[in-house]
Amino acid sequence: MKRLRIIKIGGQVVENKIELKNFLKAFANVDSPKILVHGGGKTATKFSKKYNITSKMIDGRRITDAESLKVVQMVYAGLINKNIVAILQGMDCQTIGLSGADCNTLLAEKRPVVDIDYGFVGDIIRVNIDIIIKLIDIELVPVFCALTHDGKGQLLNTNADSITTELGMALADKFPVDLVFCFEKQGVLKNINDENSVVPSINSENYTRLKKEGIISAGMIPKIDNAFRALRGGVGNVYITHFHSLTDIFRLDNRKGTRIFLE
Amino acid sequence: MKRLRIIKIGGQVVENKIELKNFLKAFANVDSPKILVHGGGKTATKFSKKYNITSKMIDGRRITDAESLKVVQMVYAGLINKNIVAILQGMDCQTIGLSGADCNTLLAEKRPVVDIDYGFVGDIIRVNIDIIIKLIDIELVPVFCALTHDGKGQLLNTNADSITTELGMALADKFPVDLVFCFEKQGVLKNINDENSVVPSINSENYTRLKKEGIISAGMIPKIDNAFRALRGGVGNVYITHFHSLTDIFRLDNRKGTRIFLE
Repeated sequence: MKRLRIIKIGGQVVENKIELKNFLKAFANVDSPKILVHGGGKTATKFSKKYNITSKMIDGRRITDAESLKVVQMVYAGLINKNIVAILQGMDCQTIGLSGADCNTLLAEKRPVVDIDYGFVGDIIRVNIDIIIKLIDIELVPVFCALTHDGKGQLLNTNADSITTELGMALADKFPVDLVFCFEKQGVLKNINDENSVVPSINSENYTRLKKEGIISAGMIPKIDNAFRALRGGVGNVYITHFHSLTDIFRLDNRKGTRIFLE
Repeated sequence: MKRLRIIKIGGQVVENKIELKNFLKAFANVDSPKILVHGGGKTATKFSKKYNITSKMIDGRRITDAESLKVVQMVYAGLINKNIVAILQGMDCQTIGLSGADCNTLLAEKRPVVDIDYGFVGDIIRVNIDIIIKLIDIELVPVFCALTHDGKGQLLNTNADSITTELGMALADKFPVDLVFCFEKQGVLKNINDENSVVPSINSENYTRLKKEGIISAGMIPKIDNAFRALRGGVGNVYITHFHSLTDIFRLDNRKGTRIFLE
């Protein structure tokens, strides 16, 4: 059975037309089956600023009130998702843009209010893999934006990293799955200021050591913890790499970026 | 073979939450296979006004410059399309929101500049029925917004009535197809000020007479001409009715609205 690659791109790439096209060219060349998940928070923030819509942030997470949800919906599902779909179609990549509401792919529940009311933010409770597999079976390439729904008519804002991880774990029942998180650094770095200090491989064993020695920066720890959660959930490999290096990440020789695996 | 119903709703309905939900409840109850096509020009205009983005209009058509296309993309594909999809999912209607770029469903060409440069406006040159049929075969209900693409990476703004008609004619090769245009009047009216003056049936023969006698208002003539184009292109029936009357339009007894057929 062919490996399924689920690739996530963050907000920095989608902000730059040329970078975005280059990244999508590399994505179009990745063997199918594949899924793209994209963020867009930076564009949403910029858009909100331009039109004086204030978006509250707590701990780096957007507080999604009704007005912010509209912005997120317009920017993620309308502007960015359709641009990506159209560009990839121009590269003969048979994409279909999806929110979690489309075909009920990603069912979530509104995050319960404990100390903070995050507003219309959803945590995924079910990935409907049957319909995603049917879309893949008819040779479509799903492109997910960072939106889910509650199954009762309400859209919810959901972190793109979480969507990638949940998709990976759920689809691992049917495919050998790899996740690739593309961002603006070369991978997990030993020295955050040195792009040449990439840690090529992390497994459960050296992760404990790297953390203990303080080699992995605080900002990366949640990302790597998340990667291990995906691996324990059935995902084969998690890659963290620069968005320029998507083509190189699957090479066995001269791989760029970090490969994370269980053991 | 089951009849395929392609139903279009205009901008007035999508502007009103309660009306929209009522309409979608009726849509959810229509037998499958079915397709929904929605407009949104009024919301786009309102949105543009709110944020001081000027949208030029010539002969009732939006001139779509780069900035307006962004607005249209955000409002049609992001805001309205995803709202509709989420609401219908809440009614157990297995919808999938689509622009013409998604799965390359609607290929268009940028309208050539003759006297007027309409900007990023597209005229459909191909409906890819194979993929639409595949989506219907896996029991999805497509919900199209008024966007197409040129196959080279460019999205284009396309009139929702035209999308409905082109879908109908193309899919008539595979299904018996009916089109339903839902709007804010009871149907084609003999007297534009009297909502009780609906013309229940129009065929080629009485259309000529109704036009000659000046019974059909100038504003309706392009809509009915368009209906006859669809009928000559293989569509079985075209219905024009109020968005409140979707449930009643398929009833043989006590039908509300106007049925248009060839002979």
